[in-house]
Amino acid sequence: MMNLIDYLPTIPDFPKPGIMFKDISPLLADKDAFSHAMSELHRLSLQTPFDYILGIESRGFIFASALAQISNKGLIMARKPNKLPTETYSEFYGLEYGQDYLEVQQNIIPQKAKILLMDDVLATGGTITAAASLVNKAGAQVAGALVLLEITELLGRKKLSEAHIETQSLIEI
Amino acid sequence: MMNLIDYLPTIPDFPKPGIMFKDISPLLADKDAFSHAMSELHRLSLQTPFDYILGIESRGFIFASALAQISNKGLIMARKPNKLPTETYSEFYGLEYGQDYLEVQQNIIPQKAKILLMDDVLATGGTITAAASLVNKAGAQVAGALVLLEITELLGRKKLSEAHIETQSLIEI
Repeated sequence: MMNLIDYLPTIPDFPKPGIMFKDISPLLADKDAFSHAMSELHRLSLQTPFDYILGIESRGFIFASALAQISNKGLIMARKPNKLPTETYSEFYGLEYGQDYLEVQQNIIPQKAKILLMDDVLATGGTITAAASLVNKAGAQVAGALVLLEITELLGRKKLSEAHIETQSLIEI
Repeated sequence: MMNLIDYLPTIPDFPKPGIMFKDISPLLADKDAFSHAMSELHRLSLQTPFDYILGIESRGFIFASALAQISNKGLIMARKPNKLPTETYSEFYGLEYGQDYLEVQQNIIPQKAKILLMDDVLATGGTITAAASLVNKAGAQVAGALVLLEITELLGRKKLSEAHIETQSLIEI
């Protein structure tokens, strides 16, 4: 049995002192590890009915796109400010290191559609909570959140639970 | 027969006046259009033997990740500055609007591996040429470049050809 955590080395003090950064690059570069991770994420996703996958820029795009292919679902992009053309919904958020805005296009998410939110890492939950607000602003429903890796000590799951977002993670540390 | 160009609307003057931006969002959000595009990109990729797919941040991640899943290949990330931990190779490039650096990790690409470069759009070719330089710095080989959409009037194919990069695009405009 492949232990995926072996493909996620910790890089201390990146991008800032005190941050223990989990590097997903070795997992992605190993075709068997990447394929195995996606099969397992697909299995977890089957527990939640959804119509679209929302990928959060930019590492979330990687997992969301691969799952969209496996699941035959459409992919919605949640992007950093000023990257998306046409009118957007915008949501401010704080994250483990710094703060930013996240945007989705106003005309891209069908009303009442069920949207699965996807990112690589669940840390404090700020980014995923912002993505959920954008889905709500669009008049759609959050089906749940799915991540590769959850850093449990940062209590993101508690924050998502308070926002009524069901969360699944493939790996917890 | 699905005409994919119908899913790629032109947004004038984004992100700057004079730029005709092609919006890939409607293609991604439509599961049939996205799946069809990926099948066709996979078909094109079969003409070039390769070991890894390099995705260029951040829309390139979407197509590279989906193709990595379909092809059962490893995925390498080429990222904007200061996003990747550990030592990196770095390459400056100009693009249709502005200029930037692109980086890959020094320890992630095996020497002599054949790398397929992937992005959403081929415009002037600056980004893909920079990605090719990074692959060469790592001691690996560029298998070719593959994009969803080629904007022919910006002559990116000529620039890539001069750098001895074989280029395939699914859609030309």
